[in-house]
Amino acid sequence: MISKNQIKHIQALHSKKNREESSLFIIEGVKLIEEFLYQTKFEVTDIFATEEFIKKHKSTFSSKSIRFFEVNDDELKKISLQSTPNETLAIVKQKHDNLNENLIQSSVNLFLDDIRDPGNLGTIIRIADWFGIGQIICSPNCTELYNPKVLQASMGAIIRMPVVYMAFKELKPFLQSIPKYGAVLTGQNIYTSTLSPGIIIIGNEAKGISQEILYEITHPITIPSAQSNGSESLNAANACAIICSEFHRQLTY
Amino acid sequence: MISKNQIKHIQALHSKKNREESSLFIIEGVKLIEEFLYQTKFEVTDIFATEEFIKKHKSTFSSKSIRFFEVNDDELKKISLQSTPNETLAIVKQKHDNLNENLIQSSVNLFLDDIRDPGNLGTIIRIADWFGIGQIICSPNCTELYNPKVLQASMGAIIRMPVVYMAFKELKPFLQSIPKYGAVLTGQNIYTSTLSPGIIIIGNEAKGISQEILYEITHPITIPSAQSNGSESLNAANACAIICSEFHRQLTY
Repeated sequence: MISKNQIKHIQALHSKKNREESSLFIIEGVKLIEEFLYQTKFEVTDIFATEEFIKKHKSTFSSKSIRFFEVNDDELKKISLQSTPNETLAIVKQKHDNLNENLIQSSVNLFLDDIRDPGNLGTIIRIADWFGIGQIICSPNCTELYNPKVLQASMGAIIRMPVVYMAFKELKPFLQSIPKYGAVLTGQNIYTSTLSPGIIIIGNEAKGISQEILYEITHPITIPSAQSNGSESLNAANACAIICSEFHRQLTY
Repeated sequence: MISKNQIKHIQALHSKKNREESSLFIIEGVKLIEEFLYQTKFEVTDIFATEEFIKKHKSTFSSKSIRFFEVNDDELKKISLQSTPNETLAIVKQKHDNLNENLIQSSVNLFLDDIRDPGNLGTIIRIADWFGIGQIICSPNCTELYNPKVLQASMGAIIRMPVVYMAFKELKPFLQSIPKYGAVLTGQNIYTSTLSPGIIIIGNEAKGISQEILYEITHPITIPSAQSNGSESLNAANACAIICSEFHRQLTY
């Protein structure tokens, strides 16, 4: 049983404005919430869940200051954003990562130039986590990290993957001696290029990489198509998956 | 100006049942419709568009039996499935591809085992088109090819890519002498395997490859992760993108 005020408070977190003002966000579903419970990066403050879920987890977390509230199906429907809510919803404190300068020098990094689709951003975080990308730097116009669709598509990868929001011009001083890769139509064949640690720039879904960033690319690359005519491009997240896979292959095998 | 009956007829095509009964489907947006106008696989029967779009295209297609209807913004909103309709909507006749036995033997093919998300199916068709996949075979439980979200995500790739619906057990007799690849957790490292033409099996988003098809895989493959713990899997469309990319790399470069 939860109060009307609690319901209002949670529903408010469905909007970006309220998430930013309170510096909180919500996550949903047994699997994602279990992942958040067993990690140390993010602080979970409140869990709203069915009796069964609470029984299973409450004793383990009695030392942490997590509040547990039992809810029934009707209450869960009211606070959830999903058409078929999955047992539990949690409130978590936002955490804002800072740029890690060592990782810029030593690993493969991603810069996302205005990725707007939350599904794409979440999927890219999941891909980056899979392939051991050092950190993701998002331009300020990228979609918000704590959008529920981003969290759902990332499948818990945001627990492990540092995601920094920073304009390219602020990032630029840190990139002076490292390769800056960008996927463009007239770049070098990615399969036959020699790839090394650096930063990979992924462009906006509709407009590609913005003009002022295009000039900064030192290593233009292309995923070659089998077709000479017809298909024009790959979706941003798929292009990112292929590029990260090829970096991983060349640097590891 | 279009009639109430026309509006009703088009709105009916928003549902799968009516699309199947009439063997018609709808596409939307200037870019996609221009692609459909300049191809020969599918027959476009009716175009509903703004005055400007009709002026630009009607004379070119006067020899074809395409009917053009001018619509205003209000009418377009009524017939469209999009929140911001883009100038034009067209009705097209469905076309059902048959299995091409030669392509099974000579090219890289995809078998999709119950891909349910229309965005994933559309994206996979776009990836397959990009990398020159011979044909896609969808299990009967895959999402419907003519779902508007599939068409939107495929970005016109369905014009070029044959997509056949067929159960695996019907397909099996044609696969006797060809390699059957499937992405599983304990397969061979895809980067260090030697890949050759054959069929790649992509599993359902939640359940992976079904049990009876798992037994048929002759070449289990894995996209190795950089992490030893943590991330569990990649999204089906991203995994497909990476696998098709690696086939393309090994067979072409």
